[in-house]
Amino acid sequence: MSKLDAALNAVDQNMDSSLDRLFALLRIESISTDSQYAKHCVTAADWLVSELNGIGFDAQRHDTPGHPMVVAKHGVQAGKPHFLFYGHYDVQPVDPLPLWNKPPFEPALEDTDAGKVIRARGACDDKGQLMTFVEACRAWQSVNGELPVGITAFFEGEEESGSPSLIPFMQANTDLLKADLAMVCDTGMWDANTPAISTMLRGMVGEQITITGPALDLHSGMYGGPAMNPIRVLTKILAGLHDDNGRITLDNFYDGVEEPPAHVKKQWEALNHDSTGFLNAVGLSEAAGEQGYSVLEQIWSRPTCDVNGIIGGYTGEGFKTVLPSTASAKVSFRLVGKQDPNAIQATFQQYVRDNLPADCSVEFKSKDASSATVMPVDAPAFAKAQKALSDEWQKDAVFAGCGGSIPVVGHIKNILDMDSLLIGFGLDDDAIHSPNEKYSLQSYHKGIRSWVRVLDSLAS
Amino acid sequence: MSKLDAALNAVDQNMDSSLDRLFALLRIESISTDSQYAKHCVTAADWLVSELNGIGFDAQRHDTPGHPMVVAKHGVQAGKPHFLFYGHYDVQPVDPLPLWNKPPFEPALEDTDAGKVIRARGACDDKGQLMTFVEACRAWQSVNGELPVGITAFFEGEEESGSPSLIPFMQANTDLLKADLAMVCDTGMWDANTPAISTMLRGMVGEQITITGPALDLHSGMYGGPAMNPIRVLTKILAGLHDDNGRITLDNFYDGVEEPPAHVKKQWEALNHDSTGFLNAVGLSEAAGEQGYSVLEQIWSRPTCDVNGIIGGYTGEGFKTVLPSTASAKVSFRLVGKQDPNAIQATFQQYVRDNLPADCSVEFKSKDASSATVMPVDAPAFAKAQKALSDEWQKDAVFAGCGGSIPVVGHIKNILDMDSLLIGFGLDDDAIHSPNEKYSLQSYHKGIRSWVRVLDSLAS
Repeated sequence: MSKLDAALNAVDQNMDSSLDRLFALLRIESISTDSQYAKHCVTAADWLVSELNGIGFDAQRHDTPGHPMVVAKHGVQAGKPHFLFYGHYDVQPVDPLPLWNKPPFEPALEDTDAGKVIRARGACDDKGQLMTFVEACRAWQSVNGELPVGITAFFEGEEESGSPSLIPFMQANTDLLKADLAMVCDTGMWDANTPAISTMLRGMVGEQITITGPALDLHSGMYGGPAMNPIRVLTKILAGLHDDNGRITLDNFYDGVEEPPAHVKKQWEALNHDSTGFLNAVGLSEAAGEQGYSVLEQIWSRPTCDVNGIIGGYTGEGFKTVLPSTASAKVSFRLVGKQDPNAIQATFQQYVRDNLPADCSVEFKSKDASSATVMPVDAPAFAKAQKALSDEWQKDAVFAGCGGSIPVVGHIKNILDMDSLLIGFGLDDDAIHSPNEKYSLQSYHKGIRSWVRVLDSLAS
Repeated sequence: MSKLDAALNAVDQNMDSSLDRLFALLRIESISTDSQYAKHCVTAADWLVSELNGIGFDAQRHDTPGHPMVVAKHGVQAGKPHFLFYGHYDVQPVDPLPLWNKPPFEPALEDTDAGKVIRARGACDDKGQLMTFVEACRAWQSVNGELPVGITAFFEGEEESGSPSLIPFMQANTDLLKADLAMVCDTGMWDANTPAISTMLRGMVGEQITITGPALDLHSGMYGGPAMNPIRVLTKILAGLHDDNGRITLDNFYDGVEEPPAHVKKQWEALNHDSTGFLNAVGLSEAAGEQGYSVLEQIWSRPTCDVNGIIGGYTGEGFKTVLPSTASAKVSFRLVGKQDPNAIQATFQQYVRDNLPADCSVEFKSKDASSATVMPVDAPAFAKAQKALSDEWQKDAVFAGCGGSIPVVGHIKNILDMDSLLIGFGLDDDAIHSPNEKYSLQSYHKGIRSWVRVLDSLAS
């Protein structure tokens, strides 16, 4: 039996214990954005250190001003190909909690029409995904006593909260993290049975803006008219961000946005994306983005602006005729091509300031900004990985775009000068960031097997 | 000693116990808009019944589908002038609670630069105000064994929550409530030492709108672009309600809005309103309402639209790149002159529907609508009351406008065919509907004395 077949066999034999280990990680409430869960993030980091040391890695926790990093090395030596694997052990908040059918941190297998699924916060994003890689290493190591390539595993715990410690840590540890190529498991399949390598990622700019008008909440009968209402100011500012064709109105916003090359567009068209089904699945029927672009183009190659949250005044039961002192919103932009996140952040802040009437002030709170990335799909590693995935799934792996933002990919490029191989096994209906998040059991099982094959393919 | 002087003397002698009784009422947490406080509304109604029966009224609690009404009669007989006195025993919610310097339902006297004040939720609106009338009746009754006029006292407990039971109750009890003229104590002084009779009130239309887009919360990376964001829809709709000059854009909105008569405008100008001081007191410097109108005109004679609350998406700490399923806002309009509240409600709902893009739906929840009212200031009762107030405060009482809405005044006109004498002792800085609401001790004391004089003046 070849080393590859032995490792694949080990994966299949040990699926029950692989699942137990994932469940143990899913039980840790590692919500990074809410400071009261900080100790659970440390628990998750320690758990990973212990697991990795148990399968031949040299793993260590690195504390930061925020949540810890984990870095682990296995078989890194001169002359052997060396890859940096990145994942994140933190998860999104769980609210609105009443919409979950079961507690989000009590993982369980469920039977669904589409097969068995693992249900829990983080089941897909990113605990399930990162564990496909860890378990692939375990299987190789258990039967072959080594890995086919050198691996540096790198896990952070702040991906869902803007990664404040990531850039300083990477800058201070370039030698520790530098390898030939990075691998990231935080993206999706093309569909439930077709694997994909994501070759484009949108970047992101996020700003929380809080507008203050009167010094205190006022009664709208006594002051309504002469007193400026900050909700009115905020809605006017937000409403001005899109024109009637769905385009974003900020000055120079589209600088650096390019149409994809003809051969890429052609490949996308050949995918025959079911746009109607994609929209219908979430209760929609029409693409609401920029006119003149297909749904795939709107997600993969066009920048967007969304208000992710807004609050002001009285929001409880009944009515209260208050004229509030403040109103705030969280606004994010998804970027493509060569759009400059810092320039867009500055332009947005200036736009808000330019539209503030007398007596209003604004405060900003910025999320870590990132630019979009486009991968060198002609490099040999991409062809090898594509073949490995196609072998496992018995279907040609697709080179796909991705509407999401994985800022670390930009940092890996800028700080470590490495490209990233983005392979993930999430599905469109995994409800990541939403109640009842899940990960298909097939994604987990064949995801582990996929990494076994990819590592084997990159050995030579 | 005249009956009047004896009653005024009794007021002064009994101020301590008058204050104790007000404090007892202020301790009752009668928040009407929040159903978990319903039992406290019943307690407040029962307390009033007991107090009124104790000073010679025949008082009864009348249960409704909402909070109870209290109706009490004293000396109503043919040939004697008969007045309906209205007040409300319910109060606004207390949030944001952290901004209160002391618990809102533990009333206390405080020394301030402007003299002693009574600090508590409802101290002014409307428990302090209604108690000025009750205590005036107590003083008259205690020394004279009767009241100078017939009185029907009428207290409701739903004024701060849209008065859902008021119209049905008034329609079913016209005989019980009918009198020669109504009196309402829910308005303010011109300034701390100048009494006022309010002769105009703005009406109100209130609508809660909830816009639904996608069937569930989505990830803005996966769906941002093609999926319509209901916050974007909501902000666009709200932002479209005002033009750049602060005018409201709804079709036919200004139908029925008239300029005040020249002599009224002249009287307002003679008041020398300190607009700068009025705005500076709440941290503002410029009138934000319709251009071309003074601050007093913007409050007294111009209609407005305010968003009183807005919420959607993730509003907790940190960032969550969610594309929410729903977003909602509470919108209210203050009306003047002959504006038709039902027509404006219908126009607003149609405006919202007309601006809904594909895949979005809207739900409305309406607050009880009311039209504006203008009082017959030339009727004899107004001159008598004006003289009584001027005698008490040793300053000419002002006929003033009022930016607030007291829907019951419209219902008293429409259902009972009676005008209302609006006399109140609130001050601009009483912080009604806000944290740290107060009522000046002078307002309470001289308010009681004022009603003693007004009742005396109306006897003949």
